[in-house]
Amino acid sequence: MQDRTPLEAYDVVDLIATKRHARELAPAEIAWVVDAFTRGLVAPEQMSALLMAIVIQGMGRREIRDLTAAMIASGERLSFAGLGRPAIDKHSTGGVGDKITLPLVPLLAALGVAVPQLSGRGLGHTGGTLDKLESIPGWRADLSNDEMYRALRDTGGVICAAGPGLAPADRAMYALRDVTGTVASLPLIASSIMSKKIAEGADGLVLDVKFGSGAFVPSLTEARELASTMVQLGDDSGLRTVALLTDMDAPLGRAVGNANEVREAVDVLHGGGPADVVELTLSLAREMLALAGMPDLDPGPALADGRALAAWRRIIVAQGGDPEAALPVARETEIVRASATGIVQRVDARAVGVGAWRLGAGRARPGDPVDHAAGVEVLVRPGDTVRAGDPLFEVNCDDPGRLARGLESLATAVELGAAAPVERPLIAGRIASADASSAASSARSASRSTTA
Amino acid sequence: MQDRTPLEAYDVVDLIATKRHARELAPAEIAWVVDAFTRGLVAPEQMSALLMAIVIQGMGRREIRDLTAAMIASGERLSFAGLGRPAIDKHSTGGVGDKITLPLVPLLAALGVAVPQLSGRGLGHTGGTLDKLESIPGWRADLSNDEMYRALRDTGGVICAAGPGLAPADRAMYALRDVTGTVASLPLIASSIMSKKIAEGADGLVLDVKFGSGAFVPSLTEARELASTMVQLGDDSGLRTVALLTDMDAPLGRAVGNANEVREAVDVLHGGGPADVVELTLSLAREMLALAGMPDLDPGPALADGRALAAWRRIIVAQGGDPEAALPVARETEIVRASATGIVQRVDARAVGVGAWRLGAGRARPGDPVDHAAGVEVLVRPGDTVRAGDPLFEVNCDDPGRLARGLESLATAVELGAAAPVERPLIAGRIASADASSAASSARSASRSTTA
Repeated sequence: MQDRTPLEAYDVVDLIATKRHARELAPAEIAWVVDAFTRGLVAPEQMSALLMAIVIQGMGRREIRDLTAAMIASGERLSFAGLGRPAIDKHSTGGVGDKITLPLVPLLAALGVAVPQLSGRGLGHTGGTLDKLESIPGWRADLSNDEMYRALRDTGGVICAAGPGLAPADRAMYALRDVTGTVASLPLIASSIMSKKIAEGADGLVLDVKFGSGAFVPSLTEARELASTMVQLGDDSGLRTVALLTDMDAPLGRAVGNANEVREAVDVLHGGGPADVVELTLSLAREMLALAGMPDLDPGPALADGRALAAWRRIIVAQGGDPEAALPVARETEIVRASATGIVQRVDARAVGVGAWRLGAGRARPGDPVDHAAGVEVLVRPGDTVRAGDPLFEVNCDDPGRLARGLESLATAVELGAAAPVERPLIAGRIASADASSAASSARSASRSTTA
Repeated sequence: MQDRTPLEAYDVVDLIATKRHARELAPAEIAWVVDAFTRGLVAPEQMSALLMAIVIQGMGRREIRDLTAAMIASGERLSFAGLGRPAIDKHSTGGVGDKITLPLVPLLAALGVAVPQLSGRGLGHTGGTLDKLESIPGWRADLSNDEMYRALRDTGGVICAAGPGLAPADRAMYALRDVTGTVASLPLIASSIMSKKIAEGADGLVLDVKFGSGAFVPSLTEARELASTMVQLGDDSGLRTVALLTDMDAPLGRAVGNANEVREAVDVLHGGGPADVVELTLSLAREMLALAGMPDLDPGPALADGRALAAWRRIIVAQGGDPEAALPVARETEIVRASATGIVQRVDARAVGVGAWRLGAGRARPGDPVDHAAGVEVLVRPGDTVRAGDPLFEVNCDDPGRLARGLESLATAVELGAAAPVERPLIAGRIASADASSAASSARSASRSTTA
């Protein structure tokens, strides 16, 4: 806990009414309500009413900054100052088949950058990096701060669960949002992500802000607003932040699940893997290298020549994992085939994500177990020509009872057409400091119209 | 519990998101969520998020009807069919100095109408009928259904607390709304009131819907919309309902508190009392007589000739009270005087209500005790000419520590001006069945803009 100044007490019902009427909350009001909620003085049902009012009525940039600061102040702040090399963090807003952290962390570690990755578990149709890595026998997500620091110092990379001391207010608020329909909100998403990232104390942060059917926000416009809000929150706190806006309309790569995504990541570390996964890994690596003071270093060779793979093995071993062990394989396999002939217009990331989730790769409630072997292999990409009977997806799971519901979601995931679809670039934009400030003037209205 | 049909289970987070996006909830969804909340399957924090979404996004008439039906279905339904005379109910949306129930119930009882009054306790700046009557030594608010029925049969009137079996879903939702800033909402107010009134099973209902600074809704327009919604809810359920729209910009009568309001009510039953209290009592009595099939009976004489007073004594005795006992008198008295000379433009009901509350007459939280002797006597009315130094209020309380905060609220309650103010009629409108249906088409937009 940082130096906590005594806070005047407010009436939480008045604060809720303020936001219900779409008026701004004052800095001291925001600081008070977050602190009071964390200490149990504001009840969950009161906080959830306030959160719903925020979701519907929005928050201005100043309020978002105050909310972020209040959540940071609720816990400890880390520092990686003693590592002797720059610590650069990365965060993805989450998508379907997004295993980029797995090749990216060892790639940067191999190039002399320290990457502390405090990751999460999956919920609903988007997967979680920790769930994926837990496919590896022996690998542990839960490290103490000391263990995390040591792993980072020794290997250059660590991927672990955020400890309970980091932004506990955000942790409590997120758990509440998850069950009260208040997740989809630009102010709440931006402050939740950035409070943890700022408290983590890295020297720079690269954000992968996704848009499209498989992402939190459906449109590029909303992704741009979310990215610009987060970049400015970072810069305001002295955390240099850059965001890429990336397309999540189709799944990333071929594997969607847990163990199969680890396999795909290892393919990339061997110099192979799907082109989009490689492209996004290298693009994010370039941004991280630039923040680390190495803007001209090409990360490509380290993927091709085995340096990144060697770093991966060290990183996995440091957390108890066996990088050579066999990964779980599912007992049941089915092929989903095209029912007609045509050109693939879309592969709907959300439908594929929901399919993998229903097969057992994801969870409906926090704390539920996941089936590490369950998942989907996406066998076609937009632009591919398929004939009736051609395979579209390979479906894997351990529990035959789950097959039908998984297949149901995948049945409509591929859209066929007669003409070639318009090509969608994977990386649709980039937001750095200057863009974020120039977009600030339109922040309030945009934050009010965000839905997902 | 009435015949409960098996309800399909819904995902409460989906329901919350539906209303968050301002979409309509289906009848079965509303029935499910109210039932699930009552049985503890939907958590308070989930219900409060849904309630906030309803407050901000509104509900259409059909949704309000379904919500009302769901709350009725959560509990028992009473019937007064065996009394041998018509049972007519009355409800006021609450105001400052509103002691009308006290003379009205015995007046109707004296004229052959049975009046079952399930009343509430005060919260914040509006008083509660039960708190007022509890100034009378020995009087009990809590009766069993059997005791209530017997008292009604024997005396023609009963004023008591609603039992726990009547619309328990509303009871639980109201407790939640009270602490989560979700009280002020037309759909929630209308369904809360009408669920209890319909479950009570009277033959007719007269509503006193108040507007102005001391009421739930500030404007006549909102009062009209609220009244028309409630009248239609009653009629849809076979409960004949009429509403008067009455002005609550100034306190009703002279006494604001508890024991002093009982004294004023007894004055009215002796044929005296302030003109506005008498006018409203007789106007509501005429509406109730009309619903009871006696549209031509003039209630005035029964107030003047002691019949209503005799009924009052019987009604108080039947609930353990001593109608001849001395009422509590406060230890501390102060006079608030005019600081200038002028014509009274307004006596702000809310400021007077807040003043009485701070003196101890009201409570901040449910369950808090009230000081029955505390209160305010309002010594001027709009249109009166006062000179600097003239008394405006007499202030009474037992706890000298409360005086300052009570006086602070009263200091600005009287507005003086040079010219006579525009006269405001006490009864500004009347809504019966036909008006309610004709107003229905504009219900949705109006329900969305209601604030208080």
